[in-house]
Amino acid sequence: MSEIGGSAGGVAARRLRLGMVGGGQGAFIGAVHRIAARIDDRYELVAGALSSDPARAKASAAELHIAPDRAYGSFAEMAEKEKARDDGIDVVAVVTPNHVHHAACVPFINAGIHVICDKPLTTTLADALDLVERVKKAGIVFGLTHNYTGYPMVRQARAMVAAGELGKIRVVQAEYAQDWLATQVDNKQAEWRTDPARSGPAGCVGDIGTHALNLASYVTGLELEAVSTELTSFVEGRPLDDNANMLLRFDGGARGMLWSSQVAVGNENNLRLRVYGEKGGLAWAQEHPNQLTFTAFGGKPQTLSRSSGELTDAATHASRIPAGHPEGYLEGFAVLYNDIAEQITARLEGRDPDPLACQVPTVEDGARGVKFIEAAVTSSQQNGAWVEAKAPL
Amino acid sequence: MSEIGGSAGGVAARRLRLGMVGGGQGAFIGAVHRIAARIDDRYELVAGALSSDPARAKASAAELHIAPDRAYGSFAEMAEKEKARDDGIDVVAVVTPNHVHHAACVPFINAGIHVICDKPLTTTLADALDLVERVKKAGIVFGLTHNYTGYPMVRQARAMVAAGELGKIRVVQAEYAQDWLATQVDNKQAEWRTDPARSGPAGCVGDIGTHALNLASYVTGLELEAVSTELTSFVEGRPLDDNANMLLRFDGGARGMLWSSQVAVGNENNLRLRVYGEKGGLAWAQEHPNQLTFTAFGGKPQTLSRSSGELTDAATHASRIPAGHPEGYLEGFAVLYNDIAEQITARLEGRDPDPLACQVPTVEDGARGVKFIEAAVTSSQQNGAWVEAKAPL
Amino acid sequence: MSEIGGSAGGVAARRLRLGMVGGGQGAFIGAVHRIAARIDDRYELVAGALSSDPARAKASAAELHIAPDRAYGSFAEMAEKEKARDDGIDVVAVVTPNHVHHAACVPFINAGIHVICDKPLTTTLADALDLVERVKKAGIVFGLTHNYTGYPMVRQARAMVAAGELGKIRVVQAEYAQDWLATQVDNKQAEWRTDPARSGPAGCVGDIGTHALNLASYVTGLELEAVSTELTSFVEGRPLDDNANMLLRFDGGARGMLWSSQVAVGNENNLRLRVYGEKGGLAWAQEHPNQLTFTAFGGKPQTLSRSSGELTDAATHASRIPAGHPEGYLEGFAVLYNDIAEQITARLEGRDPDPLACQVPTVEDGARGVKFIEAAVTSSQQNGAWVEAKAPL
Amino acid sequence: MSEIGGSAGGVAARRLRLGMVGGGQGAFIGAVHRIAARIDDRYELVAGALSSDPARAKASAAELHIAPDRAYGSFAEMAEKEKARDDGIDVVAVVTPNHVHHAACVPFINAGIHVICDKPLTTTLADALDLVERVKKAGIVFGLTHNYTGYPMVRQARAMVAAGELGKIRVVQAEYAQDWLATQVDNKQAEWRTDPARSGPAGCVGDIGTHALNLASYVTGLELEAVSTELTSFVEGRPLDDNANMLLRFDGGARGMLWSSQVAVGNENNLRLRVYGEKGGLAWAQEHPNQLTFTAFGGKPQTLSRSSGELTDAATHASRIPAGHPEGYLEGFAVLYNDIAEQITARLEGRDPDPLACQVPTVEDGARGVKFIEAAVTSSQQNGAWVEAKAPL
Repeated sequence: MSEIGGSAGGVAARRLRLGMVGGGQGAFIGAVHRIAARIDDRYELVAGALSSDPARAKASAAELHIAPDRAYGSFAEMAEKEKARDDGIDVVAVVTPNHVHHAACVPFINAGIHVICDKPLTTTLADALDLVERVKKAGIVFGLTHNYTGYPMVRQARAMVAAGELGKIRVVQAEYAQDWLATQVDNKQAEWRTDPARSGPAGCVGDIGTHALNLASYVTGLELEAVSTELTSFVEGRPLDDNANMLLRFDGGARGMLWSSQVAVGNENNLRLRVYGEKGGLAWAQEHPNQLTFTAFGGKPQTLSRSSGELTDAATHASRIPAGHPEGYLEGFAVLYNDIAEQITARLEGRDPDPLACQVPTVEDGARGVKFIEAAVTSSQQNGAWVEAKAPL
Repeated sequence: MSEIGGSAGGVAARRLRLGMVGGGQGAFIGAVHRIAARIDDRYELVAGALSSDPARAKASAAELHIAPDRAYGSFAEMAEKEKARDDGIDVVAVVTPNHVHHAACVPFINAGIHVICDKPLTTTLADALDLVERVKKAGIVFGLTHNYTGYPMVRQARAMVAAGELGKIRVVQAEYAQDWLATQVDNKQAEWRTDPARSGPAGCVGDIGTHALNLASYVTGLELEAVSTELTSFVEGRPLDDNANMLLRFDGGARGMLWSSQVAVGNENNLRLRVYGEKGGLAWAQEHPNQLTFTAFGGKPQTLSRSSGELTDAATHASRIPAGHPEGYLEGFAVLYNDIAEQITARLEGRDPDPLACQVPTVEDGARGVKFIEAAVTSSQQNGAWVEAKAPL
Repeated sequence: MSEIGGSAGGVAARRLRLGMVGGGQGAFIGAVHRIAARIDDRYELVAGALSSDPARAKASAAELHIAPDRAYGSFAEMAEKEKARDDGIDVVAVVTPNHVHHAACVPFINAGIHVICDKPLTTTLADALDLVERVKKAGIVFGLTHNYTGYPMVRQARAMVAAGELGKIRVVQAEYAQDWLATQVDNKQAEWRTDPARSGPAGCVGDIGTHALNLASYVTGLELEAVSTELTSFVEGRPLDDNANMLLRFDGGARGMLWSSQVAVGNENNLRLRVYGEKGGLAWAQEHPNQLTFTAFGGKPQTLSRSSGELTDAATHASRIPAGHPEGYLEGFAVLYNDIAEQITARLEGRDPDPLACQVPTVEDGARGVKFIEAAVTSSQQNGAWVEAKAPL
Repeated sequence: MSEIGGSAGGVAARRLRLGMVGGGQGAFIGAVHRIAARIDDRYELVAGALSSDPARAKASAAELHIAPDRAYGSFAEMAEKEKARDDGIDVVAVVTPNHVHHAACVPFINAGIHVICDKPLTTTLADALDLVERVKKAGIVFGLTHNYTGYPMVRQARAMVAAGELGKIRVVQAEYAQDWLATQVDNKQAEWRTDPARSGPAGCVGDIGTHALNLASYVTGLELEAVSTELTSFVEGRPLDDNANMLLRFDGGARGMLWSSQVAVGNENNLRLRVYGEKGGLAWAQEHPNQLTFTAFGGKPQTLSRSSGELTDAATHASRIPAGHPEGYLEGFAVLYNDIAEQITARLEGRDPDPLACQVPTVEDGARGVKFIEAAVTSSQQNGAWVEAKAPL
């Protein structure tokens, strides 16, 4: 097990001061980010612009033990005032609906405050590339919470591919299936996800397909080259896709398929990845994340277990408790928070960060995801023609 | 449990006289057909043209207790002489390599002998349509051994879809993954499967992709309309595809994906089908065929088990032993043999066959499979353009 | 894959002539034995005393294509007349209710006819030991159909233990759980199984507990020394146990537990075995019999698959078709029939049998099972005191 | 999902002030308790007597952001000084080795400070009963961290049994298997667990067997009456048991088996519970804790999933995030912390606690566990005689 949650040297680093934009009462992902920030005790939440509704923003802040003078009415005000404080926030978590990400990130980047941003990065490629540019200029740490990359066995899979244990990759099968939008749904979560104005041009592709694509690239190290896509809206009157069938072409000749669906009855958060190379194959499923199946060609399928012996350092780094005691979604999310804390703390302490903590998806990965969404939509509009999907980075 | 293997009325119907073309020493699928024919005791193997090599044909016949005078040197001779006998064969099983199917079937059809033929039906659509025409004219029984349709839980799935338990079908996910061709393989099985002259224009699409497509159509009752395909040969020097990534469009708006691969390390015979409709979803996997998972929208996933209470008659018909005692590949294969025996016996007895025994894939299904293969190859040659895949029946 | 179902040398051995006692219309296990005898084509069923009811015996024989003059009214008559024929049966299958096994076996043993007998061997230890003695004197082949020993992965497990891959065995966990007797059941199968006069002194211990114990000893090679047992009849009015909780002591210090139950709601035929030694552990489950999990201490759990590479000869011997195409209960049962055929054929041909075919449970194993049942009943009557369970062989 | 981690009314309750005894550098379970306390943000760790080694105690406190003046050298000093402060701790977590639990709890109970204590409660029954008495007199909240009771699907199982969905319970099968002590192990965790002076009279029974027994009683609501046990030390020279095979008798006629082992190669933390009643059966496994299988008699096995529709309030109360996003060991542990926080906060606020938060194992449950351990050891010493196991409460 790693030293997550403690510090190596006997003297604790100070907790980072965290602010949050979005994530007020009733928001799902904001609560998740806060738990993720608490698990390893490297952050304290001290400021927030938690809602575009001022009353809800105040009430939410009070519930979260944020001092009244640091409960802001807007992210712009927050960036300005926090920058001005001696004890201003080190880092901000942006957990608004997708269409606000770009606007919310900019003032903090400009203020030199590090950023943790939810995915997808933006709703247009232009906005995404703008953020890439700004982050580069500002020189800040920018972490994108494709949270599934924080699972230890995903880190293990990535390390095994990188070490050549699968040989040259040939085939990638990725899928993310849910069923909660199989009929008309009337709730806050469904509402903004099926609204092009807030979600962007794609429905399930943007909401969950990006996770599957990100996971595939994260594990294989391969960049997507082109997609051929058929997007469908099965539920009558829904303006955005609720099912996406895709063929993928990766750098270097690997071929893939990606299915994302929110109408696949019987699926909750069935994100799965299978990767096949010349020498081996592996399979991982998010709903049982503590195991990874690996088969060397001609050998017997092996079940690798989180925290068990002989895993890679990359996996051990991302795990807290012994094998057989499952870690879950929140712990995986917290690995990203912990890694970002290490990156920021290293800067504060004037040292290089632990390389194992430098595997968090970046603003560039965010741009790749937005390019993927745009290419998927374009391909579907062109009856499945192959469309280039490589971000111009 | 059904009365498979016995007869309802107390007087046993006579065993059908079976001949075999192909399937001599060293052939895999011939041995499987023979076991399938024996399990329910409705056939006796009495004649054969078991090999194109006369010595091997004789030796194979002797091993199988076939009388020397009914061990033929060619299928043409066999059809002629058996037709002339009073105790001539009722039915012939054609288990040659694919490219011989058409030629081998014709003389028996012409002789009015019923036919059981392995899949794919032929290597060209013209040949397939020719057989359709001949079978129609001759009025014989013709069963195509897409054997996975004999599994009781596949029958159950089909009956549930037909009864509307899933509602209108939206999404179909089919796959058949193996790994035995992940490298160059030098054996008889691999040799003819990767040889265009004997296998036809497709590799893994024809060998196993057709099974996946047939299964999808069999369960959903939907006809394939069009395919968009990327075929790849990952192993250097292999003339035919060893991986196929496909998007599917079905009659009535359902959308699907199909993956077939023979280079997916860690997969043995991983044929899986998932079907999602407006009201429910189901999943079945060939390697654990005695279970079927069904989820009604909003309900809890249920594990349906072969032979357990409350299954459909279609499933019960295809099962021999109690729940929890697994039946496998050979029993599923034998269900087709048993059903075909019922169809033939009903004719001999001048009665209507049991409708539950009339769900065996037909010569028309064979033509659909060949059309699918051709469309897949064409689409891949056209960089994944959508190609019509409906057989002109 | 083995040459099961064929013959090695090019000339087929003649099929053995098989008779059957019991197994008439409506009998479950008789039909199973007949399918098992047919699968590999080494038997032909030619005679029977299929029922104690003469009309049913005749009708059953007719259905099974047995000639009228070989459809006998009693097993005694059958033994006598078959012995007198030149083409008399080589071997008889005894598939009556338990309490008839002894009486039915004796005349055939006396006639020098080989015997295949269902389990448990007898309903008293005295009867069992008598059969042991008679078989020894007569020098016949006697196979006891503890059919689960015919599963290839059970053979694999046994071979791995024998080869020392698990080291010295420490802990054995065996269980066989069903639920079909969770309430009062009124059918033929339930009736005799819960009737002491026909089943013997034990209910689920005799019916299924013996299978679990046999499996444990078969795989580990360890003989049972003593049991501590609590038998319970949960369903009111049931005279025999429907649940048995047991502690086991084996030869050489291994310790075990055995649970058999017919009231465990949600279980069909959940027979499972787990074995742990100093160097490794393994697990096998009858409902998914094509896989075996093995873990070497400190290593990763491996899934061994039937017919896949690098299995022992013992497993390969018992398998017919390639990995990933499941074999089931009937095939496992047929392995015993095939092995017994080899043992008998070798005698007919004056040669030594294939050693791999000599792993069928014997009449001595049957006596061990009966001793186990008696010890279990005694221990339970003595409030769980440890009772010796070693058969006096 | 419940409102775990927030507060219902819009004004946050203050965080409870938490102290810790034991759990300094290198301790496993202390770190787990701290994460559990942080996840839902209802505690702040402000004081500690983290080690019996003063230097380590200081260093550990510094790492944990505990002020130097609240880093105590002994638990006695800590209880005294914290009691004297206006901002003294509300509650203490006792996470020392087992043999210190009693001594460490007493001063805090005496000071009226609420207690969270790790299991097993004590190493002797007398000590356990003494704590029961003291807690009763002091009127404090006392939570015992049998943490598996915090898993949502365990709460679900308990609620289903209580609601009669399984009918009268007949059979209970509990097991907790590990393999990390399959050989001699030299580390801190192994050292004290195999030392009678620190662990008490039992090895794996006390360490993990108690968890299995507690889980069985927690879910079924049945009290243990008697045990028949065989304890074994398979590893040479080990003074305490590393494997325990047990038969159980519960109140009201239910019968059970319990296996706990630390030498079962291939098991990590394989805690499983199966419960069978007249009307239904259920199964749960700790390594995949987000699912629960339930079968109503005659129906199909259903997979209940954490946070999915139609679960009981008890399960919903214990869950934070949507179905399909797994929660794990730490979240389950945190449920106990959250529930204890609710119990304490309700007292501070002069109101009744949420009844759903009142299902945490108590000091009485701790005494039951110690009685179980003693009975198990006694039974084994008496060659498995049935020994009464009901705590004198």
